[in-house]
Amino acid sequence: MNFLEEKICKEGVVRAGNVLKVDAFLNHRLDMELLDQMGEEFFRRFQGKGINKILTIEASGIAIACATARFFRVPVVFAKKSKSINLDADLLVAEVESFTHKTKNQVVVSKKFLSADDKVLIIDDFLANGCALQGLISIVKASGGSVAGIGIAIEKGFQVGGKTIRNLGYPLESLAIVDGMDAETGEIVFRTQEDEKNEVVG
Amino acid sequence: MNFLEEKICKEGVVRAGNVLKVDAFLNHRLDMELLDQMGEEFFRRFQGKGINKILTIEASGIAIACATARFFRVPVVFAKKSKSINLDADLLVAEVESFTHKTKNQVVVSKKFLSADDKVLIIDDFLANGCALQGLISIVKASGGSVAGIGIAIEKGFQVGGKTIRNLGYPLESLAIVDGMDAETGEIVFRTQEDEKNEVVG
Repeated sequence: MNFLEEKICKEGVVRAGNVLKVDAFLNHRLDMELLDQMGEEFFRRFQGKGINKILTIEASGIAIACATARFFRVPVVFAKKSKSINLDADLLVAEVESFTHKTKNQVVVSKKFLSADDKVLIIDDFLANGCALQGLISIVKASGGSVAGIGIAIEKGFQVGGKTIRNLGYPLESLAIVDGMDAETGEIVFRTQEDEKNEVVG
Repeated sequence: MNFLEEKICKEGVVRAGNVLKVDAFLNHRLDMELLDQMGEEFFRRFQGKGINKILTIEASGIAIACATARFFRVPVVFAKKSKSINLDADLLVAEVESFTHKTKNQVVVSKKFLSADDKVLIIDDFLANGCALQGLISIVKASGGSVAGIGIAIEKGFQVGGKTIRNLGYPLESLAIVDGMDAETGEIVFRTQEDEKNEVVG
């Protein structure tokens, strides 16, 4: 197990409905040492690709993006969520559907902060069905820039998002891929990555 | 002028209605070196007060809080904004009115992440009327913890928030206090702090 998988086993909580709560260290309380480790690991995986900007989405992606940007020495841009905004020629907009909340939201980035010269590393905390991520990719494409990498903290491997994005040829790296969870036992199954072995932790 | 005031003059934009746009470096695109400087400066002003936790509010406060937490070597907790939530015994809740949007929102923090032992440094990007900040203070009080300091990036000194909080005896430090702005000329007047001299920049 890598450092993030260990942390998930130690402090994450599995709830009914395939919910994995990581609010103790990733999206409510923030463990700064863990974030540093994550930033360093994303740097290890994506360095040398000419990345000059990191794009994430408010709110939970911001801390991870900042921790990663320190290693790359590049700025972060965070996309904003908006219920509905007037069409503004200065904005890059993507419509994102939330399966959890059954609502449609707009995700917006100012055109000033993404351009055709940009090689963008997209960072986010969770990848499940992938709607938010698809929105961020479409925004980078609309800016004329390129997606040089996608770094996710926790991927729900049993949902379709990761597979779709990999099928489309994007360089997607998830620090932990959860292939299964059991709310009754608390068991979490992580997908084996690189030289790791598949492990089941109760 | 200090480093933040210089940045505001260089890259901030004054708009009609006393709006100061700092999206080029503070709340859309994030300048990581500036954030580091801000974190270091908050550490200089609040070190030695036994601070063991930093509290902020999503989304724009998160990056500043993280930059500051690196110097203090403490975790960050970010409060979440919620339109309306069911009363939950596990949550600390404050109601916050938005003067800009004329709406009431709830600000929530899980009780797990704030306790009576905590000496909290509250960090946020803007202070104007102070409603969001008052909500964060009330949440710390409800947890039984104490507010050891309040660090704000940019205070609108011509609005009532900062004066009220200082009158109540809270140790509030703002890195830049804007006492006046002119949207037509772009002029910004900063309040003199410490050994600085009052300056007008066009």
